[in-house]
Amino acid sequence: MPLPERIQIKEVGPRDGLQNETEILSTEAKIEWINALSQTGLSYIEITSFVHPKWIPQLADALEVASAIRRKEGVTYAALVPNLKGLQRALQADVDEVAVFMSASEAHNKKNINKSIGDTYRVLNEVIEEAKEEQKSVRGYISTVFGCPYEGKVSVDDVLRICDRLFEMGIDECSLGDTIGVANPKQVQDVLTKLERYFPKHSLALHFHNTRGTALANVWAAMELGYERFDSALGGLGGCPYAKGASGNLATDDLLYMVQEMGYNTGIDELKLREAASLIQGHLNKELPSHQMSIVNRGGIQV
Amino acid sequence: MPLPERIQIKEVGPRDGLQNETEILSTEAKIEWINALSQTGLSYIEITSFVHPKWIPQLADALEVASAIRRKEGVTYAALVPNLKGLQRALQADVDEVAVFMSASEAHNKKNINKSIGDTYRVLNEVIEEAKEEQKSVRGYISTVFGCPYEGKVSVDDVLRICDRLFEMGIDECSLGDTIGVANPKQVQDVLTKLERYFPKHSLALHFHNTRGTALANVWAAMELGYERFDSALGGLGGCPYAKGASGNLATDDLLYMVQEMGYNTGIDELKLREAASLIQGHLNKELPSHQMSIVNRGGIQV
Repeated sequence: MPLPERIQIKEVGPRDGLQNETEILSTEAKIEWINALSQTGLSYIEITSFVHPKWIPQLADALEVASAIRRKEGVTYAALVPNLKGLQRALQADVDEVAVFMSASEAHNKKNINKSIGDTYRVLNEVIEEAKEEQKSVRGYISTVFGCPYEGKVSVDDVLRICDRLFEMGIDECSLGDTIGVANPKQVQDVLTKLERYFPKHSLALHFHNTRGTALANVWAAMELGYERFDSALGGLGGCPYAKGASGNLATDDLLYMVQEMGYNTGIDELKLREAASLIQGHLNKELPSHQMSIVNRGGIQV
Repeated sequence: MPLPERIQIKEVGPRDGLQNETEILSTEAKIEWINALSQTGLSYIEITSFVHPKWIPQLADALEVASAIRRKEGVTYAALVPNLKGLQRALQADVDEVAVFMSASEAHNKKNINKSIGDTYRVLNEVIEEAKEEQKSVRGYISTVFGCPYEGKVSVDDVLRICDRLFEMGIDECSLGDTIGVANPKQVQDVLTKLERYFPKHSLALHFHNTRGTALANVWAAMELGYERFDSALGGLGGCPYAKGASGNLATDDLLYMVQEMGYNTGIDELKLREAASLIQGHLNKELPSHQMSIVNRGGIQV
C-alpha cells in the first residue's frame, strides 16, 4: 500500500484545544493567535464553536472572534455548530465551513449532546441542509470512534452506519475522533480497513488525542493505509476531561516534525508555527505539552 | 507481513534512564528500585554501567548495586561494559549479560568512546571473547543508527557493516539505538527492511528515544515488520544530552499500554509497574514524563 502523496494538517487548537483549557482567554488574545496561525501556511483552521456559551464558556465569544479575525486567502476557516441556532451565528460570521458533531456511542452522545443518536440525526440533517443551501462545506465529526469513556469498546459497524448516514445527508468530510485517546495503531488499521471499502480515503480525516502517547503511532498506521488528513492542535493544547493530567490533542508541531522528516512538504513554516505556539503559551501562561515546545521551553531549540 | 507473536520489553531505566538524570540517587534507592522492577514481571533489566565513574558519576556504585540486588529467577540482569576493566567488575558482580556499545557514526563514537570505530572494534572484540569464555551472553548496542548529533544522516550500510562485525565477534543480540530521538517510522521501516535480509529478526532489538514524540510510532513501524524486542525506561526516565528539555527513553509504561491494548500479554503487571514508577519518582523527587505517569500524577489513575 503506497503512502499518501500529501499530508494535510487541520488545526483545531482554537476550538478543540481551547475548549479544554480552564484559563479563559481574552477575545483579543484569540484573535491575535488565529491571525498568527493564518500566517504559518496552515490551510485549515477550526476557529471556534457556536455551541451555547453555558456549555463552553471559553468559546462564548465565538461570533466576535469569527468576525474579527483577518482572513487569509487559501485558508479554510471552520467552526463547530450544534444546531440551527449555532448555524445562524456561524453564517453571520461567514465562516467557510461548518462542522457538525455526534458520537459513535449512545452514552457519550447522550452526555455530550443530551440526545439519542436517532434524535441527533434530525438536528444534524437540518443543519447540513441549511449550510449546503448557503454554499458552505460541511464537516462531520464522529466522537468515541475508538472507544467510549462510558461504554468501552465501540463497534466498527456503528461507526460505519453513522458515517454512511452523515455522507448521505451531504457532509463533505468525516473526521473520526479518538476522543479519549485510547486508540492503538492496530485498531486504527482494523477500523480503517473496514471503512475504506465504503468511503474514499480523502473524505475521511483522523482526529487523534495523545492522552496515552499513541497519537503519532496512530497517524502512521493511518498513513500506511493511504489516509492523508489529520486534525491536531498546536502545542498539544487542551486536555482530556476523562483523564485528569492527560495530554490533549495530537500536537500540530510534533505531527509536522514527523511528516517533514519523512519528506512531506505540508506548506507549513516550522518557525512561524513555533512563534504561534509561543504566543498562545504566553497568553495561557502555561507550558504547552508538545515535545517540540518542551524542547523550546528548556532552551533546546531557539525561537 | 504478520505482526510478531510476542513482544519482549527490555527495561533499561536503571542504566540509560538514570545516567541522564542529574540528581544523584543513593545506592540504596537504586537497589530498592531494581528489586521492585524484578517483581513486575519484566524478564530483562539493565541494571547499571561499569564505565569509569568519572564518565557517569551517577553510576559510580555499579558494583555495589549489581552485587546487592535480589535476583529473581527468570529475569536477565544486564550491565553495560566499555572495556576489559569494566568487564572484570561486571563479572565480579556476576551479571547475566554484558552489553558492549559503539556508534554508527565516527563523530559520535569519537565523542562518546574517544576512539575511532576501527579502534573500538578491537576493544569490543576482547570484551566479547572474554565474556563468552565466562559463559555470559553479550548484547551489542549501536548508537546513532537513525541520526547523529554531529554528522546528521547515518548510512544504513554503515549500520549493516557494524552489525555484521559485532555478530561475527559473537554477540547474541544487537540493539539499534535512536540515540537522539530523531527517527521516524518510515525511516525505521527502510532501515529494518535492509537489515532483515542479513539478520534474524529476533536477534535485533530497537532502542528508541522519545525526544520528539515519535518512539511509539517507531515501535509500531518495527512491529509491522515482525520485530519483537524493544528497550524502554520506566516512566520515560532520562533525557537527551543533545536537546535540553527533551523527553528521555521511550517509557516502559506507555509501551506496555500500547501493546496490551493490541492484545499482547507481556507478562508484566501494570499495577506493579506503576508502583515501581512511583517509587523511583519519589526518590528522584520529580515527575516522570511518561503519559501514564502524567495521568497518575494528576489523579487520573489511582495507584
